[in-house]
Amino acid sequence: DYPRKNAELLSAQYGINVLLVGVALMLAIAQQKASVEEKDLLSFTTSLMILQLIWMIWYILVRRSQGKTRTERDVNATTCWIRGGLTLLAVLSLIMDALKIGYYVGYRLCLSEVYVVYPVTHVVHTIAQVHFLWFHIKDVIKSFETFERFGVMHAVFTNLILWCNGVMSETEHFMNNHIRQTSGVEFQNITTEEPALQCNCTTTTCALFSRSFTYLFPFNIEYHIFVSALLFVMWKNIGRTIDISSNRKSLVTKTQGLTLGPILGLLALVSTIGILVVYITRLPGPLEVHLSAVSMFYIYGIVLLVVMCSAGALGLLIYRANHMPLDASKNPSRQLDTELLFGSALGSWFMSWCSIVSVLSSKSDPPYRWTNLIYSLLIILEKYIQNLFIIESLYRQQESLEKADPELPTNPEVFSVTSSLPPLNGIDNQAYESPGEGSSSMENEQEENGQVYGSQRKQSNVPLPVDIHAAEPLNMKRLVLKNIAVFLLLCNISLWILPAFGCRPQYDNGLEEATFGFSRWTTVLNFAIPLSLFYRMHSVASLFEVFRRV
Amino acid sequence: DYPRKNAELLSAQYGINVLLVGVALMLAIAQQKASVEEKDLLSFTTSLMILQLIWMIWYILVRRSQGKTRTERDVNATTCWIRGGLTLLAVLSLIMDALKIGYYVGYRLCLSEVYVVYPVTHVVHTIAQVHFLWFHIKDVIKSFETFERFGVMHAVFTNLILWCNGVMSETEHFMNNHIRQTSGVEFQNITTEEPALQCNCTTTTCALFSRSFTYLFPFNIEYHIFVSALLFVMWKNIGRTIDISSNRKSLVTKTQGLTLGPILGLLALVSTIGILVVYITRLPGPLEVHLSAVSMFYIYGIVLLVVMCSAGALGLLIYRANHMPLDASKNPSRQLDTELLFGSALGSWFMSWCSIVSVLSSKSDPPYRWTNLIYSLLIILEKYIQNLFIIESLYRQQESLEKADPELPTNPEVFSVTSSLPPLNGIDNQAYESPGEGSSSMENEQEENGQVYGSQRKQSNVPLPVDIHAAEPLNMKRLVLKNIAVFLLLCNISLWILPAFGCRPQYDNGLEEATFGFSRWTTVLNFAIPLSLFYRMHSVASLFEVFRRV
Repeated sequence: DYPRKNAELLSAQYGINVLLVGVALMLAIAQQKASVEEKDLLSFTTSLMILQLIWMIWYILVRRSQGKTRTERDVNATTCWIRGGLTLLAVLSLIMDALKIGYYVGYRLCLSEVYVVYPVTHVVHTIAQVHFLWFHIKDVIKSFETFERFGVMHAVFTNLILWCNGVMSETEHFMNNHIRQTSGVEFQNITTEEPALQCNCTTTTCALFSRSFTYLFPFNIEYHIFVSALLFVMWKNIGRTIDISSNRKSLVTKTQGLTLGPILGLLALVSTIGILVVYITRLPGPLEVHLSAVSMFYIYGIVLLVVMCSAGALGLLIYRANHMPLDASKNPSRQLDTELLFGSALGSWFMSWCSIVSVLSSKSDPPYRWTNLIYSLLIILEKYIQNLFIIESLYRQQESLEKADPELPTNPEVFSVTSSLPPLNGIDNQAYESPGEGSSSMENEQEENGQVYGSQRKQSNVPLPVDIHAAEPLNMKRLVLKNIAVFLLLCNISLWILPAFGCRPQYDNGLEEATFGFSRWTTVLNFAIPLSLFYRMHSVASLFEVFRRV
Repeated sequence: DYPRKNAELLSAQYGINVLLVGVALMLAIAQQKASVEEKDLLSFTTSLMILQLIWMIWYILVRRSQGKTRTERDVNATTCWIRGGLTLLAVLSLIMDALKIGYYVGYRLCLSEVYVVYPVTHVVHTIAQVHFLWFHIKDVIKSFETFERFGVMHAVFTNLILWCNGVMSETEHFMNNHIRQTSGVEFQNITTEEPALQCNCTTTTCALFSRSFTYLFPFNIEYHIFVSALLFVMWKNIGRTIDISSNRKSLVTKTQGLTLGPILGLLALVSTIGILVVYITRLPGPLEVHLSAVSMFYIYGIVLLVVMCSAGALGLLIYRANHMPLDASKNPSRQLDTELLFGSALGSWFMSWCSIVSVLSSKSDPPYRWTNLIYSLLIILEKYIQNLFIIESLYRQQESLEKADPELPTNPEVFSVTSSLPPLNGIDNQAYESPGEGSSSMENEQEENGQVYGSQRKQSNVPLPVDIHAAEPLNMKRLVLKNIAVFLLLCNISLWILPAFGCRPQYDNGLEEATFGFSRWTTVLNFAIPLSLFYRMHSVASLFEVFRRV
């Protein structure tokens, strides 16, 4: 067999090249009067999806045929919350596909069949993939390793291409809207219209379909990038020997004493939606209304970010006051989380630095010039602090384990004992792992537990003194940390909603456009905004994990 | 003290943000009628260099004051060959700076002082940095860790900004030349001229200076990116506990039996220079001469790449026939090598896929259409195979160690014994470590040896039976592998020379330009070509390492 390092490299290089083909095709399509047409890209993506489907079916059949032999599982790979969230996103993607099918069926006379085949394949692909996520994503593959590496890598990059594709469609749609709106306000005079189709829609609902499915783009985009992150963790786990002592689920969540965080967070969320509505309705108005909408956005952003920075800084101070060794056990999922937080922050950092450069050098002086500067500086600071907070939280050893037995930093009994406490049983353990999944979830969990601390299972039903520590009411520090995590989580959702649904003042304020030129600045934004959106969604997932761990 | 993970993140985020400021400034300058001027960028870069200088002086003084206490060193961090090569590149950079100073002094009446201050600072910075490279780059820092992390990170990103700056100047210069040349051949009608200066040169040698220093750009560019890679390894080593058993130098190089590889390689190198001269002289000619020059390039490239692919594949086959466990010991330098090879290959992979897409979709049919396709496919394949070959070579455990004592995979005696053999002594050991460095090199080496296997030093002068194995003539397989490494090394130098000195058919063939549009395609090339150049130089360094290890 191939040595591990090489097998990894072989498949990683394959995956990257698949992605590059896709990106090259997209780049060619973006050109006007292109020799490459959209249907070529769709055929390429469709064949990748079919290939992934074949691999998934093969994988599932092989696992079935192996039958009784237990597959090792990495319990850190994902949580049922993430899988639940992904299922929701997948459902929204399915609705989008249905609308797309309806739309293209209306135009079937003048469009290639690929336009219908693509969403149909996407439906099958999505359903199969969600099934795969629930039952196989935690597997640690130990047979046919080299081949499976290719399979998983193919799946990772198929999803990444679908993500790129989604981002491209979304951007195209947004740009068309933007140009239509600002043609009155006169910021630039470039006209890239959606190519007019050669024939009319044969059904009456085409316009309705097309208007609806564009609202679902953001969910489809987040779905694909999250799935590819999970599959990447699966790829990293192939052939790995799991360290049993660290392979246990984290402690159950306790929610008493949570008031200030959720309340402030919900307040932020509600006001965000208000701001979004006001912004979108006022933007196409006359110049002074337009300018006031942009100013309003910046002022709101500054207030929100100042509070978020303070919350994050408070969290870090609490950590500094309370020393705790970092947990250095191997955990590809956490490692990836760290890298993704760091990597996806790059997008908005770059955007912010560009804004700062243009504010400082600009010769014009719109009302929001200095608020833009402060907003951009706060965006940078906020991500800086938030990354530190999240990553430190994920790497700290769990406090209750420390207390329970300082000699044995990872003590599997703690979890079982906690789960046998009367008030938490059934809510925080079975239902927790996979809500509304019935018998299969029970099996799943038993399999995982069996894997994790097999022979120690019997002892675990006897209540141990450890228990008292674990059931102790949350102390003050942990309570504050939990509130901070919830608050930051809701704020990150707010900051995701704004750009995801079209509130992008970077396009509307005209300052950076004057400094960098229209085409360069839109190129920067087309890279940076999808990254920034992903950053927010990813922080939400990580903060949820933080919330559960503290 | 801050926990390690957080201190790393703090400094990494700082570094990334410094880089992003620099890139934002560069982007603003690239705009015509920009509000940000070049002198702003130069002032920014100058202040970064001064800050780095202050840190380096501080660092050196602290090390001096600690005096006798030995600093741990990571012997894998760099080799004296790399440092020697970097010194050479630094000398060429210094010459470039001297020419620049001369040039700007001539224009001093109409240019800001920053234009002179910048190269003067760069001279001081380069000299100090080379000193730092020779005496401190291997240090494993264990005091003031958090502060030193910031210092090293600052140095890494200062060099990266200088690299970006160099790439930008080089690209600007190339584009101006390119547009001047092809304005006759009529591929596009965009005129971006170098901005005419407001006054005349006060000395007679300005034109000569400006023509000369542009030839030195490629060396300056490679110097900075290599230094930042070495500094990055130093950053990774901060606070690390070095595993003494794996911290030893690799075996001495034996060069008997090397004939075919070097001969073929030199042949490739000489013919490359021929091709370069012919290409550059024929390019500005009439259309058919122009087309024939491009065709010639592709045919030459295909021949070279086919031979390189075969050599790499042969190397991999030899490895497959000869199983050997991979060396999994921690080594940040090797880890970084792997990542950089993989990451920098992305640039030319993407470029090649774009070419393939445009060849397949193009409606025009120039004579080099299909050769371009084959060339691009081979570029992809060649990097795929070469990466596998290099990375497998770097990760394989060294054969002679295996043979010497299968029970003890890392046996420090082997090295000392080998070094005491009469025919190799003095050539392959002292002189090897740092040629022409006199007493300080001796001290250095003793320090390193002391660190590495302190107490075993005494035994090592007694010849052991192990010796016989190590001195055994090279067996056939290793001989072939050595020849392959040398051949690939020289081929990579050839493939670096071509684009570095202006042979870039991607600009001249017009196929991709028609598919992607002029501005998009030049943007792609402006990212991809610097990466591709770095890939070649980096492979040269890695292949040299491979050559020494096999």
